[in-house]
Amino acid sequence: MNEIYLDNSATTRVDDQVAQAALDAMCRTYGNPSSLHTKGLEAELMLDGARRQVAAALGAQPEEIAFTSGGTEANNLALLGAMAMGRRRGGRVVVTAFEHSSVLAACAQLEQQGCEVVYVKPDAQGHIAARDVVAAVDERTALVSAMLVNNEVGTVAPVEEIARALKLQKRGALLHCDAVQAFGKLPIRVARLGVDLLTVSGHKIYAPKGVGALYIKKGVRIAPRAHGGAQERGLRVGTEPAPAIAALGKAAELIDTQRTARNTALFAKTLREGLAGVAGLRFNSPEDALPSVVNLSAVGIRSEIMMHYLEQRGIYVSSGSACAKGERSHVLRSMGLPDEVIDSALRVSFGKYNTCEDIARFITVLRQGMKDIKRSRP
Amino acid sequence: MNEIYLDNSATTRVDDQVAQAALDAMCRTYGNPSSLHTKGLEAELMLDGARRQVAAALGAQPEEIAFTSGGTEANNLALLGAMAMGRRRGGRVVVTAFEHSSVLAACAQLEQQGCEVVYVKPDAQGHIAARDVVAAVDERTALVSAMLVNNEVGTVAPVEEIARALKLQKRGALLHCDAVQAFGKLPIRVARLGVDLLTVSGHKIYAPKGVGALYIKKGVRIAPRAHGGAQERGLRVGTEPAPAIAALGKAAELIDTQRTARNTALFAKTLREGLAGVAGLRFNSPEDALPSVVNLSAVGIRSEIMMHYLEQRGIYVSSGSACAKGERSHVLRSMGLPDEVIDSALRVSFGKYNTCEDIARFITVLRQGMKDIKRSRP
Repeated sequence: MNEIYLDNSATTRVDDQVAQAALDAMCRTYGNPSSLHTKGLEAELMLDGARRQVAAALGAQPEEIAFTSGGTEANNLALLGAMAMGRRRGGRVVVTAFEHSSVLAACAQLEQQGCEVVYVKPDAQGHIAARDVVAAVDERTALVSAMLVNNEVGTVAPVEEIARALKLQKRGALLHCDAVQAFGKLPIRVARLGVDLLTVSGHKIYAPKGVGALYIKKGVRIAPRAHGGAQERGLRVGTEPAPAIAALGKAAELIDTQRTARNTALFAKTLREGLAGVAGLRFNSPEDALPSVVNLSAVGIRSEIMMHYLEQRGIYVSSGSACAKGERSHVLRSMGLPDEVIDSALRVSFGKYNTCEDIARFITVLRQGMKDIKRSRP
Repeated sequence: MNEIYLDNSATTRVDDQVAQAALDAMCRTYGNPSSLHTKGLEAELMLDGARRQVAAALGAQPEEIAFTSGGTEANNLALLGAMAMGRRRGGRVVVTAFEHSSVLAACAQLEQQGCEVVYVKPDAQGHIAARDVVAAVDERTALVSAMLVNNEVGTVAPVEEIARALKLQKRGALLHCDAVQAFGKLPIRVARLGVDLLTVSGHKIYAPKGVGALYIKKGVRIAPRAHGGAQERGLRVGTEPAPAIAALGKAAELIDTQRTARNTALFAKTLREGLAGVAGLRFNSPEDALPSVVNLSAVGIRSEIMMHYLEQRGIYVSSGSACAKGERSHVLRSMGLPDEVIDSALRVSFGKYNTCEDIARFITVLRQGMKDIKRSRP
């Protein structure tokens, strides 16, 4: 059976060229980047190259990039690391209510440490209003965190607008942006966005799981989360995951946001047209969301029932974030959607290996599934 | 020029079979282990398999293994995670004075948090006396940490004896063991060792950089260091570095401590015999150290001078731990060795790709180097 993988927001298959970069790092440039001899230097140069590639993809300077073991570590480092510094301790943090669990869990940790966290809700379409975020920022606010593209519904937050308003306020709050779901899909320029900290991850852009990066704007200081060694200038210590970093560098180099935008827009359009007017079918992602992610509900059919029906026919989608492992989506809840919509939500997310035929097949099977599942009920 | 890599304690070249396991995980079993569909399940089963392989190599149960991004993260998790739990907060910690920097730096962090840390010194041979460790343990002591094999001199600590004494004391102190340099070289059985927590790393045993594991004895509770997601039962969250974990599992399966012991014993013997009686040459590793590591000093010739001479001839050794990046060795200092010995120390560490010819060539070049470098001086 032909496999149709439509869960690219959960993770992606590693690109062959990217895998080759990892393989080279494992078996050829295998030295320890901290070793003082040529084998170490070769490995260090390889890391430098990857750092330049990731920096270039973000419009950052290489020295502003710290590699981590992934998006979760980068988000934890950004939030907990920033708030552990000097006068930021115990301050206020403003975040959007539908951040990734790694940001929300870090916020819960900050609350335990005495910080006040304000959660700014999106509207029913998944849009965040910049004015709501900015209104929550007071003189005690040390950090604002807003994800660029929501991982479940694909809406794009007005990070640039938030950054401009924060600058006008002159209250000195740092701005962190979780760009894990945006990286590779939207052109990201950290200076234009106006962020101080920005998280990206490898395995959403055809690099392996186990690597991510945190952009840390020059001059911004954050505290490390682990101790021992001087890697990543002491910010993220321990021998670097060199094969995964080399792979991330290559994947960053291969990013083609124009092509991605063109293809995913076509896929999303095909999907919306193919399901238009189907009774009981509603789209939870608004039309202006990033087309890579389309969240929809076959209302009345529980997500896991439909996922099972689809996967029996070789089609893989998700009910929400993989990290939530089947719990009721906090994203859709924050948007105020009714339970019956949330419980039947499906996230369809496109990647570069998908074809128009995949989408056509998905439409056919989903429509058939809605009929079959309803018919099978007593 | 033929390369002779004698820095296997810093890192190893990834085994081809192990690299294949990583490659499969990148391009075939690429699902997110947290995804609820078949692609996710396949990936989760792959992680389960790797967990069983690592557990088997340690004589542990699979559910006692938590994967991390490497040895440093595992050591930080063990020390800071253990001491963050309930009544252990602010207690006393007893460690050997020549632990890896990730343990010592975690200890410095614990001191900042109000813990008292006692550093037990080795003797001039690099031996730790179990009675010294045990004598430092009082009723306030919550944790003892002793590395099984020292990373610079190869001496084996009496962890089993320490564990027995701690049990007799009945003071409830946990015992952590950094076994990064022992894994793959000594047969490790966690129950026989009597440890509660034990750290291993992938890239010292022919798996890629970016993965390690912490053995956590059933019933022992430690606090996580990062937040968000439920991976590794909440202890080490974030999408798992699945390719590196699959590779670690394969590498653990390929461990052959008997063969390693036989080969490295031959290499160490060859080295000691080949350099016996050379004026100005002293061995800093005692005869009973693990033969994988031989620390020696060509007294009067600074380490970096000799390393440079050797690498110009294709031979790679180190002056100490790679993580220390050329700082004066705290290990040799803790043994009370004179500065001139420390400043000329070389760590020669063997791996499975080395041959007897490599060792013979090293001996020849080192002897020649001692003559050439001395002769070149004004």
